[in-house]
Amino acid sequence: MQIVIIGSGNVAYHLAKAFVYKGIPIAQIFGRNEESLNKISEELQLSYSIKDLKDADLYIICVSDNSVEDVSKLITKKDCLVAHTSGSLPKEILKGEYRKSSLYPLQTFSKSKNLNYGKIPFFIEAENENDENILFELASKVSENVMKGSYEKRKYIHLTAVFACNFVNHLFARAKEISDSQEIPFEYFLPLIDETVQKIHEIEPKSAQTGPAVRNDVRVLQLHEQLLKDESLEIYKTMNHSIKKMYEL
Amino acid sequence: MQIVIIGSGNVAYHLAKAFVYKGIPIAQIFGRNEESLNKISEELQLSYSIKDLKDADLYIICVSDNSVEDVSKLITKKDCLVAHTSGSLPKEILKGEYRKSSLYPLQTFSKSKNLNYGKIPFFIEAENENDENILFELASKVSENVMKGSYEKRKYIHLTAVFACNFVNHLFARAKEISDSQEIPFEYFLPLIDETVQKIHEIEPKSAQTGPAVRNDVRVLQLHEQLLKDESLEIYKTMNHSIKKMYEL
Repeated sequence: MQIVIIGSGNVAYHLAKAFVYKGIPIAQIFGRNEESLNKISEELQLSYSIKDLKDADLYIICVSDNSVEDVSKLITKKDCLVAHTSGSLPKEILKGEYRKSSLYPLQTFSKSKNLNYGKIPFFIEAENENDENILFELASKVSENVMKGSYEKRKYIHLTAVFACNFVNHLFARAKEISDSQEIPFEYFLPLIDETVQKIHEIEPKSAQTGPAVRNDVRVLQLHEQLLKDESLEIYKTMNHSIKKMYEL
Repeated sequence: MQIVIIGSGNVAYHLAKAFVYKGIPIAQIFGRNEESLNKISEELQLSYSIKDLKDADLYIICVSDNSVEDVSKLITKKDCLVAHTSGSLPKEILKGEYRKSSLYPLQTFSKSKNLNYGKIPFFIEAENENDENILFELASKVSENVMKGSYEKRKYIHLTAVFACNFVNHLFARAKEISDSQEIPFEYFLPLIDETVQKIHEIEPKSAQTGPAVRNDVRVLQLHEQLLKDESLEIYKTMNHSIKKMYEL
């Protein structure tokens, strides 16, 4: 099977790397950003192009949601399977006469951070069972967690991921802003952060809640509000309100 | 040195356990809740009381912030050192003629969750160098991360911890609410959550940000808002607003 990856961002890079590591041949990596493509191509020993899309059996589109539709039109071949990798787009966003599908890896990708691909959940959706099987077999070479996932489900998976990953990371960024302002090394907080996550492997997050809001410790809540301003103060109020609501305080 | 721990909650339990594991004798564990005390006493083979506070050189108060002041009045002895374990109280909250201090462990404690005490940062504050040394030596038997920390600093450490731990856990709870509503197992998200935290051991959280808000992906942001309501919707809007502000989008 000839596979082409389209894109040169974080997802394209890690998917290509995962395939190469498992000995899955990639016919081409195709995109607009020659500098990025060149880097990936050098590291993973892949041929790339910014002009001529190679003939393939499977095209995997790894570009930002806004570009998926336009990019999908570049594929003029009919007898092939095309998958996008977005958590929040239906497979029908793909515009062409080929078979349409989705291959969604539930993970946060940064080029500079190595990953264990074997644990990443992959969600698959295709037009028919045969195409599902093609994607299932491919993803199963990389990961032990491959599942079917309709668009309806995928939307909610992505939304959950935004809370559990993107927003969590933003809380770390705001926390670091606070500790930086007092010249407190952020490293002090890493054991606490690690434990916070370790905990939810064993305890339901709702049962693991600690802190002043769930204790309804009004004195501390007021003290903290005096120390904060702008967006961090907004976050503080919104989160405490939500905690109080969840525990009916 | 005779040590008495006052309290029977999560902090009292884990501090007592950490001391016992390192062979530091505890003269008594004292508190109001006999059922909790009895459990801790059985597990750790400690004597306890709900009535008669033992004579000691060091009392460590591990009760909720609201109770520290009242509890501190129970100690009528003069020639002793008393430490509270709160992140957001000055040592002057302690009301007695003894020497006052603070021993703040930066960690989230749940009784049902085992902990590696060796990495927990302990912040120490006392009236004089001698008392600081007493607490420093004691805490150093448990952890390799013992530091001095004034009340001014401690307040901000605690506030940072609320963002990096308490609010992060609440995001997990709200995320699980969303995945539960669609019968998506929350376990799917654990590799993503683990990676989100692994990342900030290597990359600044501000540089590690991914997701629709930092990409300013208006279509996805609108789609997600339609899927949410109540507190989760409020969190969604507040966090996205804060992300956009941080990256000047």
